[in-house]
Parts: sequence; structure tokens; C-alpha cells
Amino acid sequence: MTRISRYPVPSLAELPEDIRARILEVQEKAGFVPNVFVTLAHRPDEFRAFFAYHDALMLKEGALSKAEREMIVVATSGANDCLYCVVAHGAILRIYSKNPLLADQVAVNYRKADLSPRQRAMLAFAIKVASDSAAIDDADFDALRAHGFADEDIWDIGAIAAFFALSNRMANMISMRPNDEFYLLGRAPRS
Amino acid sequence: MTRISRYPVPSLAELPEDIRARILEVQEKAGFVPNVFVTLAHRPDEFRAFFAYHDALMLKEGALSKAEREMIVVATSGANDCLYCVVAHGAILRIYSKNPLLADQVAVNYRKADLSPRQRAMLAFAIKVASDSAAIDDADFDALRAHGFADEDIWDIGAIAAFFALSNRMANMISMRPNDEFYLLGRAPRS
Amino acid sequence: MTRISRYPVPSLAELPEDIRARILEVQEKAGFVPNVFVTLAHRPDEFRAFFAYHDALMLKEGALSKAEREMIVVATSGANDCLYCVVAHGAILRIYSKNPLLADQVAVNYRKADLSPRQRAMLAFAIKVASDSAAIDDADFDALRAHGFADEDIWDIGAIAAFFALSNRMANMISMRPNDEFYLLGRAPRS
Amino acid sequence: MTRISRYPVPSLAELPEDIRARILEVQEKAGFVPNVFVTLAHRPDEFRAFFAYHDALMLKEGALSKAEREMIVVATSGANDCLYCVVAHGAILRIYSKNPLLADQVAVNYRKADLSPRQRAMLAFAIKVASDSAAIDDADFDALRAHGFADEDIWDIGAIAAFFALSNRMANMISMRPNDEFYLLGRAPRS
Amino acid sequence: MTRISRYPVPSLAELPEDIRARILEVQEKAGFVPNVFVTLAHRPDEFRAFFAYHDALMLKEGALSKAEREMIVVATSGANDCLYCVVAHGAILRIYSKNPLLADQVAVNYRKADLSPRQRAMLAFAIKVASDSAAIDDADFDALRAHGFADEDIWDIGAIAAFFALSNRMANMISMRPNDEFYLLGRAPRS
Amino acid sequence: MTRISRYPVPSLAELPEDIRARILEVQEKAGFVPNVFVTLAHRPDEFRAFFAYHDALMLKEGALSKAEREMIVVATSGANDCLYCVVAHGAILRIYSKNPLLADQVAVNYRKADLSPRQRAMLAFAIKVASDSAAIDDADFDALRAHGFADEDIWDIGAIAAFFALSNRMANMISMRPNDEFYLLGRAPRS
Repeated sequence: MTRISRYPVPSLAELPEDIRARILEVQEKAGFVPNVFVTLAHRPDEFRAFFAYHDALMLKEGALSKAEREMIVVATSGANDCLYCVVAHGAILRIYSKNPLLADQVAVNYRKADLSPRQRAMLAFAIKVASDSAAIDDADFDALRAHGFADEDIWDIGAIAAFFALSNRMANMISMRPNDEFYLLGRAPRS
Repeated sequence: MTRISRYPVPSLAELPEDIRARILEVQEKAGFVPNVFVTLAHRPDEFRAFFAYHDALMLKEGALSKAEREMIVVATSGANDCLYCVVAHGAILRIYSKNPLLADQVAVNYRKADLSPRQRAMLAFAIKVASDSAAIDDADFDALRAHGFADEDIWDIGAIAAFFALSNRMANMISMRPNDEFYLLGRAPRS
Repeated sequence: MTRISRYPVPSLAELPEDIRARILEVQEKAGFVPNVFVTLAHRPDEFRAFFAYHDALMLKEGALSKAEREMIVVATSGANDCLYCVVAHGAILRIYSKNPLLADQVAVNYRKADLSPRQRAMLAFAIKVASDSAAIDDADFDALRAHGFADEDIWDIGAIAAFFALSNRMANMISMRPNDEFYLLGRAPRS
Repeated sequence: MTRISRYPVPSLAELPEDIRARILEVQEKAGFVPNVFVTLAHRPDEFRAFFAYHDALMLKEGALSKAEREMIVVATSGANDCLYCVVAHGAILRIYSKNPLLADQVAVNYRKADLSPRQRAMLAFAIKVASDSAAIDDADFDALRAHGFADEDIWDIGAIAAFFALSNRMANMISMRPNDEFYLLGRAPRS
Repeated sequence: MTRISRYPVPSLAELPEDIRARILEVQEKAGFVPNVFVTLAHRPDEFRAFFAYHDALMLKEGALSKAEREMIVVATSGANDCLYCVVAHGAILRIYSKNPLLADQVAVNYRKADLSPRQRAMLAFAIKVASDSAAIDDADFDALRAHGFADEDIWDIGAIAAFFALSNRMANMISMRPNDEFYLLGRAPRS
Repeated sequence: MTRISRYPVPSLAELPEDIRARILEVQEKAGFVPNVFVTLAHRPDEFRAFFAYHDALMLKEGALSKAEREMIVVATSGANDCLYCVVAHGAILRIYSKNPLLADQVAVNYRKADLSPRQRAMLAFAIKVASDSAAIDDADFDALRAHGFADEDIWDIGAIAAFFALSNRMANMISMRPNDEFYLLGRAPRS
């Protein structure tokens, strides 16, 4: 069987109760267990912090839609050449956006994607946080404000890009493999 | 309707006979006309040379399988962030390889793809031709020979990478849009 | 007074109890409150996840000494041009290593620092995770194993580099300012 | 004798009639056979497509002068560190421009060359197509239009840059050697 | 004892009289001999030219304050990852600016340093000379003039950046080690 | 008349005696005054240090031939896109090497130039000093020693690369224009 991580992958039985519960809940909802859960469960404390952080950014209320948050993930993961995150979050983006084309567009080149100018500005900022954060300055904030983003929205954009800077590096380091299921999810055309 | 090129797109009726014939032949075979044909037909002479070159590299006999040639296209087009070529040739790679996962893997990070060491060496060379050709030297040829590639195979690898260096730049410049059909082609799982 | 963040900085009084407690504990120990605590407290849920992750990596048992973990932070934060992390963790590195020179050396160019070959290999890997994680492969793991690192140590090195990829981007985005106190900490010569 | 390619170089006698005719025609006109003809003739079908493409771009009518087209070749070949194209097309640029200095200027740094602002804008676009085509956007087109370029001219500029992206990579891969004759051609001062 | 250069370091006794005099003068003033003097004294003629150049730029009259000149040194040496120059000139910057924080700020990221907009513009130009001088054009001069810099001031800024491009490369090549004394100099808080 | 510098160019009459003498001596020997002399004479003290440094490196005895020193200048000036130095030192390299082709080869891509493996290793080191000096380590010295270079030769190579890092930046900043004479010098074929 194909390895899904360079590191040992714990079985559900050997996991702490809270982590097993989280995984079973995801499995219930998605129909399968995304590999990020079982591969990162190799380190329970890091697992708990990772998903607490993820949830704080991706599940919170705010002006960014769920699809827009996933656009940030896919665009920055594309910039970081992270296979797991492009494939897994590409699937989630297709589902949230109900658009079967958008994820591949954003992963390859967000400038050519079917996005609004506001969304393109959002991704330009996210890519700058991902790739050249030391150069972020007032002009970058002003550019987003001109598109109607509040400062709290900008924090959200930057924090998601920053969190996936971590996530992409972990996935690349341990060679985390995307589940085969992700590749096809959400690809059925809009009806 | 979404534009498929920054430039005017000729109707079939206004095209020279040989180009129309080629396009109808493709349509017959694929069930739709890939946008690269109608967008490049804006310049008939360049069209003819482009597809003559394409066919000379992609249809010729040789040690590289058709799937391997498409791997080179997808990997280098990913390195060049070319949406049209990643999506269109990703579809062709899925079809030739009968592997619904491989194209996305190769587009994002060929090092994590389900490939043989020989194929990974092939793509490392192709990426070097695409991104840093001035540094190609004897050691690069030796590395491929060690995997059993003949010098004529190496020409094929490098020439495909070189041709898509051209193709990616044209597609990026004119904002060539991939047909919606490509995104889903070849994604049905192996049976 | 100089701003320490682009974003509002909460007073202790307005913070949730657990966050206030954590901050008071740090203040007790360090004699001042590092700005990372009060600036990130603007987002309590993200604060909790951030420090849980930090503690899971930096306080856990393991083969890497506390000074070595801080070397990873300082080297990668230098590569990311993150003022807060270079200055704050530089201070911590001076304290843990009882070496007043090491932090500046590692921040500017770890290859010229007073380190063992094993530590230099550790930092080479950390920098690769920070700057080019998509290219991490078996050879990188083998290089660290040759210096006696176990695979769990390698996870630690990579995970610290990955976590500070996040941390550096947050600090750069919000223009987090290091406390003046950090600059001088641990600079008294060894006795 | 110095090798002019890593690959076998066919003699005129062994070449297909059309290719031999083309080569003899060039020899008649130039007084020698540029190595690009005999080295690429190793692959007759690719040879035909290559020169058909070349002619479609370089010999067509249009607003760009022949010297301007060669400027694009020399500037982008300089950016790609391609010895053959810098030397051979540098010679052609000297001849077409009747300026013995321009080719070296454009090859090293077009910003310091004796050019009009319009020509400098043309080369800035060509270099962007050569080096960062994924970032080409409306603003790049607007900048050229402001200098009076029609959209068809912009296609010409971009297509020449794209074609020599291919040509440079082929020359670098096979170590194509410029003929000694090129170095001195067109260097006699204006009279 | 720790080596301060890859190359032999002459004793004072074996040095030519003028070089010995210069070194004794520095020692008298600084209380120790900075390693740049004894390591470069390995080549007396180059030593003389190096310090004549240094003095012509750093000791001359002009609109730039001594602290501003050292800011240029520290910022560009940070960009070049030069340990000796960051540490030694960081100390001098702390002394001239009477600001114990500024050197570390400028070395890591001048955009986050306690500087005036005029000084930030000065350092942006210096970094461009250090890292991408071929792209310097009229717009860069205009930007500095808008901040009140005269053209002679701009020469000073660029020439200091250019001289330390040399200095950083020499220090990196010979692994010049900063004296331990520099790390602590000027760190006592302003009083 | 074409400007040869962004800055005022002094007439011979207004120059200090020693500088005028040096310039007249060069004119006597070369038949014209290279622009580097009159443009840098705008700053007499810097002029004196610049040429003292130049002479210390380029006129000294040593294992490197004069042609080899000029190869280092041309290769690194090509990497820095410095028009003045590529053109002026290209001429000098043609003269010293008695090879009319070598300068253009080395300026564009030294890997394709008619050089010995020893000379190619020399230029690889020089380019690393020019472009990435912070990464120079023992392995780089060992590579040169394996080609028979003594450590003093390596200093020469690195110091020439470092000095022209300065020179290229000055020329780029002030837009120093190469004299028309240089372009043709030394191009007559070997006899």
C-alpha cells in the first residue's frame, strides 16, 4: 500500500480519546479520513494545536466567505508547491464555491481565475504574506481597504496565509499524501 | 460568454481550408475544439508552424511513451504557472496514463508524484531546461544516461520542455482559457 | 509611544482569564511582557492555538537542546527577515546557550557561527524547510541521520522551522515590535 | 575541430532535399552556413517547423522594423544566457540597425542602450514574457498601447520572445556553437 | 584560539610601517584592533586602497550624517548576509546614532526600523544598488530627490552601498570573524 | 553629444595634477581616454582609491595570467549586467588573450566558452563570490585547490570578483557609458 507519510501513522485504537473522536467525526461527515488527520496524529499535542488553530481561522465568523478562505489556502499552497494542500483544499474549494473549475485555476495562476477584482486583490496579499512577508507595508493594507476589506478581514487573510505556510511545510517535510478521494470531489458540473 | 483570448477568435468559416480541416479533425476526435486551436488560428502561419512542431515532438516514435511526454508538458507548464497547458495537458496525461491522479501530482510537485526514479530524473532534466537551461552541462546528460536514456531520448525531453516554454508564454500572454471540458476528462478511476 | 502592532492591543483587564493568567505568568518570569503575547491576544482563539503549538514544540522533551531549538528559530527568522523573532528569540538563544555571540552569528549567517558540524547540518535542513520545502527529499533526511539525528529529531527540526514560518509571517504582517528589553538580554559575557 | 553541437551534425549530402535547399540558399546569401541550420537539421521535422515559425514571426509585414524584432531576440536571449542567439542575432541586429554598438548594449542591459522610450517599453514587455509570463496582465498591454503599439504589434513582440524562449533552450541544451563569422559581422562603424 | 580569517594574519611586527601606524592609531582609539585591519593587512597594497576608499566615503563631509552612512552599511551588509560587517558596523551605528536598537532593526528589516521616511527611501536605494544595480533608473533618482537628497548625496549613498558590496564579499570569502568586543558596544541604553 | 555619466564630467584642466597625469598616461597608451577615468574623476579621492585598488589586483604578479584576470572581470560583470565593464573589459580580454571570440563567450555564458576546466572552475568561484558570497565554504576552496590553485590565487580570484562588484555597481548607478572604441578593439582574427 502506498505510504501516506514518512512517519509512522497511528491506528485509531492507539490514539488519545479526543483525537479519535475528532477523527471519527470527520469520517462521519466526509465519508473518509483525510490523511492530514492520521499523519499529524503521530504527535498528539501538535495535532491538537494544529486543528485548534485551523478551526480558529477557518470556522470563525467574518466577512470572508468559506470559499474565499479556501481560495487563500489553495493559492498559497500552489505557490509553495504543496501537493496535499492543493489537492485536499482544492476539493473543499470546489464544494464551497460550487464551482468545479475554480480550484485548478487558483492553484495554477490566480490572475487567470474566474474571480472578482476584490478576490484577486485578496489573493495578491495572501501570496505576498506567503512569499515575501518582510516587504508587507502600509500600501498593501491600503490596497485591500480600497476593495472594502476591513482591517480584521486583512488579519484573516494574512493569518490564513501564515497558517498554511506552516501546514504546507509540514506536509512537504513528511511527504503527506492526499487521499485519492479528494481528486474527484466537487468536480461534477454546476446544475 | 467568457473570453478565451485577449485577441479576436476567428470563426471556422473565416479560416483557411487546411486549418479548418485540422480543427474539424480534432473536434471529431475529442468531441470539442480545444481553445488552443481557435485562439492560435488568429495567426494562420504561426498556427501551422506551432502544430507542425507540436506533432513532430509529440506524435513521433521514440522511447518516451505518450504519457511520459505529457508528464514533461504538465511538469514544465506547472513550473511556468500556465493555466491552459496544465489543465489541457493534465487531461491528456490522465487519459494516456490511465491514472486519474498523476496529472495533479506532476503539476504541483513531481517529486511527490507516483513515478519511477527514471521518470523523476526525466522531469528534473525537463524542469532544468525550462527554468535554467544555461546551466545544463555534461553532468545532466550523464544523470539521464545512468537511467538508460539514449541521447536521442534526451533531445526529446529537452525539446518538449523547450517547445512548451514557447507554448506557455503564448498562452499566458494572450490569456488563453482552457475549455471547461478538460477539467473533468480522464478523472474516472481506473477499473 | 511607539506602536507595537498595526492592530489594537488589548489591556490585561479586557482579556479572558486564561490568557491573562498566561501573560501574568510570563511577566513574573521574564520581568516584562513580550509583545508577542499582547499583540496576538487581539485574537484569543488564535492566541491559545499559537501558544499551545509553541509549547508543544519548544517545551517538549527530546534530543534537541533548548538552545538548539532557539538556533532553528533564529536562523529561519533571519532568512525570513522577521525583526520580532530575530530579536526576541536571539535573546532567548543567548540565555539558553550562555553564549552572548551566537544569536547574532546565527541570525546573519549560520555558516559562520560557532557551531558543531551537526548543528550546521541541523540549520541547513531548517533553512530548506523554511525556504524551499517542496524540494525536501530522502537525501535531506539521510544527511541528518549521518549526523546522528533520529527521525523524531528531524520532525522536531522541521516542525519548529514550519511553526516559525507562521510566526514570522504574522509578526511581519502586523508589524510586531520587539520589546526594547530583548536587545540587551544575555549579552553579558560568559564568566 | 571544435564541436558545434552535442549531437551528430548531418552533412549536406545526407539531408532531405528541402532542407538542403534552404541551407544552400542561406549559404548563398550569408557566405557561410549558420550553425543553427546544420545542428537542428539533425531532426528534419523539427527543423521544418522551427524555421517555418521563425519565418512567420521574423519575415512577416508589420509595424515592428526588422531591427526591432532582432532587438527582442537579443534582449531575451541575453536574459536567458544563450550564447548562440546573442552572438548570431547580435550580428543580424548590427546589420539591420546599421549600428555597430546596439547589439552589445541590448544583450547586456537594454536599459542602458541607445533606444527610444518606445523601444525600451517594447523590450521591458519582451523580457517579462521571457522571464515571468504568468504575471502578464492588462497593465502591461496598456503600457505598450501608451507608446502607440497596436495589439497586433504586442502579439508580435510577445510571440518573438516566446519563440526564442524555445530557441534559447534548444541552443543551450545541445551546446550550439555560434559560427566564428558572426562575432565580427556588422561591426564596421557607421559611415 | 578561534581563527579570524582563512588566510595568514600578519603580526604587527611584520607589517609595513604605514599599515602598522594605521592599526596602532585605531587600537588607540577603539581600545582593540578590529579584525578587518589585521586580516586585510595580509595584502598591504589592497589594504591601503581599501582603507583609502573607505575613508573617502565614510569620513568625507556631506549631507549624510555619520549614522546615516553606517545605516547604509548595515542594511546592505544584512542583505548580503555578511557577519563581519553587520556586527562591526552595527556597533558603530549604535555609537553614532546613540540608539542601541537601531542597528539590529536595520540589519534584519529596515522597513520596520525607527527611521524617518527620508531614511527609509535612502535605504531602499542602497539595497537596490546592492542587489539589483542594473535596474537603477531615473525614477530611483527622482524618488530620492523628492526626499530632498541632492545628486551628490545620491552618489554617496550608492557609492557606500557599492563599496560594501566589495567589503562584504571579501569578508565572506576569507571568513573574516568579528571581534567579540563589537557585539556589546553601544548597547547601553540612551541616557 | 551622448552623455557618458549621470554626473558632471570634469575637463582635464580642472583635475588635480596626479589624476590628470594618470589620464594622460592612459590616453597615450590606449589612444583614447576610457570613460571610467573621466567619470570617476568627479570624485578625486574615490578615483585615487579605485585605481589603486584596481592596480593592486590587476597589475600584481601572480599565477593568474592577465587574460585570466580579465575573464573574471567579464564573467562577473556579465552576471551583474554591467554594460561598461562587459564592453571595456571585453576589449581588454580580447587583447590579452589574443582571442577575438572569448570575451563575448565569457560575458554571455562562461560554461560554453573556449576555456580549460581549470578556468571554468575559476569562473564558477568568481560567479559565486559575485552572486552568493555568503554561501562560500571549504568545499569551494577545495574545488579550486583540486585544479592546482594555491590559496593566494584563490584570494586573487575572489578579490577581483569583489572589486568588480563595486565597480559594476558604480557604473550601473551613474550610467557610465563605454567608449565607442572598445566595441571593436581586439576583434581582428588571430593571425
